[in-house]
Amino acid sequence: MSETTTVTAAVLVIGDEILSGRTKDRNIGYIAEYLGKIGVDLREARVVPDVEEEIVAALNALRDRYDYVVTTGGIGPTHDDITADAVGRAFGAPVVEDPRAIAIMLERYAEADLTPARRRMARIPEGATLVDNPISRAPGFRIGNVFVLAGVPSVMQAMLDGAAREMRSGAVMQVRSIEAGAVPEGIYGDALGRIAGANPVVSIGSYPSFKDGRFLNQIVVRGKDAATVEAASREVEAMLATIRGDGKPV
Amino acid sequence: MSETTTVTAAVLVIGDEILSGRTKDRNIGYIAEYLGKIGVDLREARVVPDVEEEIVAALNALRDRYDYVVTTGGIGPTHDDITADAVGRAFGAPVVEDPRAIAIMLERYAEADLTPARRRMARIPEGATLVDNPISRAPGFRIGNVFVLAGVPSVMQAMLDGAAREMRSGAVMQVRSIEAGAVPEGIYGDALGRIAGANPVVSIGSYPSFKDGRFLNQIVVRGKDAATVEAASREVEAMLATIRGDGKPV
Repeated sequence: MSETTTVTAAVLVIGDEILSGRTKDRNIGYIAEYLGKIGVDLREARVVPDVEEEIVAALNALRDRYDYVVTTGGIGPTHDDITADAVGRAFGAPVVEDPRAIAIMLERYAEADLTPARRRMARIPEGATLVDNPISRAPGFRIGNVFVLAGVPSVMQAMLDGAAREMRSGAVMQVRSIEAGAVPEGIYGDALGRIAGANPVVSIGSYPSFKDGRFLNQIVVRGKDAATVEAASREVEAMLATIRGDGKPV
Repeated sequence: MSETTTVTAAVLVIGDEILSGRTKDRNIGYIAEYLGKIGVDLREARVVPDVEEEIVAALNALRDRYDYVVTTGGIGPTHDDITADAVGRAFGAPVVEDPRAIAIMLERYAEADLTPARRRMARIPEGATLVDNPISRAPGFRIGNVFVLAGVPSVMQAMLDGAAREMRSGAVMQVRSIEAGAVPEGIYGDALGRIAGANPVVSIGSYPSFKDGRFLNQIVVRGKDAATVEAASREVEAMLATIRGDGKPV
């Protein structure tokens, strides 16, 4: 694999509870960071409600466009868990009770306890492969370039370990974070823009946070090639040192 | 305004830092909860990178479809802050230095300190109105049904107060949360599905969380009419009481 290989992904978060604000999503950030470390670039994320046509439309838009899509949520045992049906419809694949999934669930449940509700969790689109769930057994699945994972963060995270092993990985993003601290963005912004313009191969971001009544800033240089990231970072550091020397924009 | 008025919204989060995992988004959840309280239903959220055509495409898709769109991020003073340009392009509106914005910024900065970088924050699409920023003055703006807010959560939150005052509000969602506790979803799932089927006017969700090695579940009944929400909630509570009585699925 060449060092410039790019592998892309999107996340599709499925669930009314995120859009109502009841549950604060923690999966996008986790998946973003996780995929970044294995050289898969997250390019987009969407949150959609538990409405089949919304899930289908978003999934089809994303799976056409990115190498992988990771979905979270909607694969539990209750009536509002409709992700498997939506994914099946997006792929034109019938959704059927999967004997492999039933076998796995029987490691956790006695057969008499496999209620119809629990059997819903074994409904998998035809042609899918299973994704292991080491926490509560009921599996996720993969169909085409789409990985369908649970919504509960600890379960999703355990499933993602298995899903990620199946992904091609690209060049890992090299990241340098430079503390600008209390130097205002408005003071270094013009110089930083010139550095960004002169280093088009890297991506340079400036990120303020607001704490105790003042902004603190961090500049992040990202790229696939360590040497160019390092060179651009040194330019940024030199620029900040100049400003810190005389307090004036450079 | 009738009690069944529905007003919808989408959130568009703009920023590479969310997709890289560097920054964990907190704006979607905050906006979701905030809009819910004033009777505006969040229907979709998207996260896109700092790439103009991506922002334009997502914004045009969302603004056509929902009553309001709230964007966060990309309105600061640095080169990677391209939201105003993208929004201008989406609306076909030239983006120009706005004298109203400059006047506001002069409340915070001496004229000599209005660097070109800071002046970028006064670039607003023609035809937009300003959204107040009580924290750091540089304003957000509104054009059409789109509110363009900062990405830093405390600044976004302060701007959202102003933006929300301009929104029509619909009927506020009535929400009843019922603790199922350790009663497994797989035990109450079938009965809950029957209750949901018999109460199509409300939306019933079942939400597990995983803590200390076990699942704890909460059932949430939502709808615009308090009486139907209350009636469905009583059915859910009666169903859970029956299961708790004999431990069997109902």
